[in-house]
Amino acid sequence: MTSHLDALGNDRVRRFLAEGQSDGPVLVVDSEVVRANYAKFAHALPDTRVFYAVKANPDPKILKLLAELGSCFDCASVAEIDMALATGASADRISFGNTIKKERDVAAAYARGVRLFAVDCREEVEKIERAAPGAKVFCRILADGAGAEWPLSRKFGCAPEMAADVLEHAHVRGLIAYGVSFHVGSQQNNVGAWDAALASAAEIFRECERRGLALSMVNLGGGFPTRYLRDVPAVEAYGASIFEALRAHFGNRIPETIIEPGRGMVGDAGWIEAEVVLVSKKSDAEDEIRWVYLDIGKFGGLAETMDEAIRYPIRTAHDGGATAPCVLAGPTCDSADVLYEKTPYPLPVSLSIGDKVLIEACGAYTTTYAAVAFNGFLPLASHVI
Amino acid sequence: MTSHLDALGNDRVRRFLAEGQSDGPVLVVDSEVVRANYAKFAHALPDTRVFYAVKANPDPKILKLLAELGSCFDCASVAEIDMALATGASADRISFGNTIKKERDVAAAYARGVRLFAVDCREEVEKIERAAPGAKVFCRILADGAGAEWPLSRKFGCAPEMAADVLEHAHVRGLIAYGVSFHVGSQQNNVGAWDAALASAAEIFRECERRGLALSMVNLGGGFPTRYLRDVPAVEAYGASIFEALRAHFGNRIPETIIEPGRGMVGDAGWIEAEVVLVSKKSDAEDEIRWVYLDIGKFGGLAETMDEAIRYPIRTAHDGGATAPCVLAGPTCDSADVLYEKTPYPLPVSLSIGDKVLIEACGAYTTTYAAVAFNGFLPLASHVI
Repeated sequence: MTSHLDALGNDRVRRFLAEGQSDGPVLVVDSEVVRANYAKFAHALPDTRVFYAVKANPDPKILKLLAELGSCFDCASVAEIDMALATGASADRISFGNTIKKERDVAAAYARGVRLFAVDCREEVEKIERAAPGAKVFCRILADGAGAEWPLSRKFGCAPEMAADVLEHAHVRGLIAYGVSFHVGSQQNNVGAWDAALASAAEIFRECERRGLALSMVNLGGGFPTRYLRDVPAVEAYGASIFEALRAHFGNRIPETIIEPGRGMVGDAGWIEAEVVLVSKKSDAEDEIRWVYLDIGKFGGLAETMDEAIRYPIRTAHDGGATAPCVLAGPTCDSADVLYEKTPYPLPVSLSIGDKVLIEACGAYTTTYAAVAFNGFLPLASHVI
Repeated sequence: MTSHLDALGNDRVRRFLAEGQSDGPVLVVDSEVVRANYAKFAHALPDTRVFYAVKANPDPKILKLLAELGSCFDCASVAEIDMALATGASADRISFGNTIKKERDVAAAYARGVRLFAVDCREEVEKIERAAPGAKVFCRILADGAGAEWPLSRKFGCAPEMAADVLEHAHVRGLIAYGVSFHVGSQQNNVGAWDAALASAAEIFRECERRGLALSMVNLGGGFPTRYLRDVPAVEAYGASIFEALRAHFGNRIPETIIEPGRGMVGDAGWIEAEVVLVSKKSDAEDEIRWVYLDIGKFGGLAETMDEAIRYPIRTAHDGGATAPCVLAGPTCDSADVLYEKTPYPLPVSLSIGDKVLIEACGAYTTTYAAVAFNGFLPLASHVI
């Protein structure tokens, strides 16, 4: 099914691009691929509610489609909450999943009917108490992120040992201590990555029970990968592995679960068409590497090439011919706007100035990362078909 | 003069901020500081024309002021050329300084009257030949960038040994082989950094002369620093050192020179007011470090904290009291949105949720780097006073 849909998406996107005229880089997202991805998650984790991570791609058409399919929404800000509500979804399908919230934003979300909030410390609990009395909170815990391709830091979550205290703090203040969340890291290629975090979550459930608090929910976060250059396990494998871990750690008292796919939902649904602006060498030495400059770079949407973390597949009209490694860079006057240099990228030797290239798996974390107007270049144009 | 103006700018900015009500982070640029910076460059390098690097901050008020003061403009794109022209400046005050240009953008610039273009390879020369016949070109060469704080890569420029070939290629094709440019790296703290590059430039002048080409101009680029946490040499010191190097390498045949300050022109003219959204710890351990989360981060304007390259001074209402090191992070749901962690930032222990902080020296490379809407957060608001 995947390969058929990939081909379908690819064909639909190529047809759309062939009909249009774009002066700059353009992202095209195939809504049929998003629809299929939603179905895969629903099928692989049948008892788990899907909260789409709006930040991955908040295009109104994508949100509308997912709302129609029954998705809930993980929102990072009041603006994202408003985007989710604009689909017609009710507020009980929204989680304010950012652990770092201004108190007035908590109040704004509460006024819109949102009743589910992420926290990872007592200070955040106290904001919720004041601005969203009686709401449900879940406590995010640190997970180690081993196996993830996009850097994971200690930014979100508290040590698991602190979680019961945070949840009790919420309970004492009249909030509903609802559950535990974690994130195993973005583009997580290890289907077993959820196991250790679920062991911690189960321990927190038991500790809370000892304190008289009955938690209800485990938020399994995101991390589901999309296919870039290397194959990734199927969603079904993640579903099976997660279900096994739930059974191992929670026995026959499996809690309510939710997932927050972002990249896994829209990543492989998007293609960016870009243009080769320049192909050159830095000297006339025989072994000098070619530099290929595209009209999109780190500041125009491909921010996830930071530290060469995400390596996108790139298709050209010359594929199949001889290739040679290139340094690949963006169009801005910024030295840091280089996509791949430490590990040069093999591209056809016949690739020339003016050629179009198709960058695959660009549906997530591209449009919103694009800079407002760096070097005067417009933000990434986007179409959902 | 510097300290007086810093204080003045600071006072004017604080007064402006005190009068306004901002819900999110806001940049305020004091045009009087920009005016003073322009005067310093004009005074320190009296025979050198100033081409302001528009990409550093393209605010129309800043461009208008600089145009009135007599500045020329270094532009990275057609959009920036249009911004420069919108000030009323004539096209002969504009350089299309990006070495990576679409041929149709060269044509668009030419149609607007621009006649000065950067190149660093034969392929780019051929675009100029076709789209801007008869124009002046200068060849950018690689410089090593030692002493610069913002990463410099090999992205722009060719090996100095190739420059005469590139310029001859231009001459043969009916273009005016006009000169040589280089960039010693952004936030360059070594006033002697221009010496080696000027030696290379002089050698290229001699080689071109042997080939019957009389070059006219050396573009000294930018790199002039702004004061962040550490003192930097005064513009006068750069002027003296550059003049000395010109004399050493060009003798009594000193060429026309231009400079392209960006950060040095607007960096210390801007202050960002931000808000503390959360102060928390990851565990209850005694020695656990505090995390301070602001409502601005890497994706909201402070992109130059990448790899902790630029370290901004941060003022708070609690300054003078006890401080402790903090991890400083932005407000988005992105693990990479951490400003300072490898080298924690000392902040007052009494700093609390809701406090405002003033981040200094934010006039350059902030507004345009800001993401369109990452996590739904608005791009950085900006006022020039």
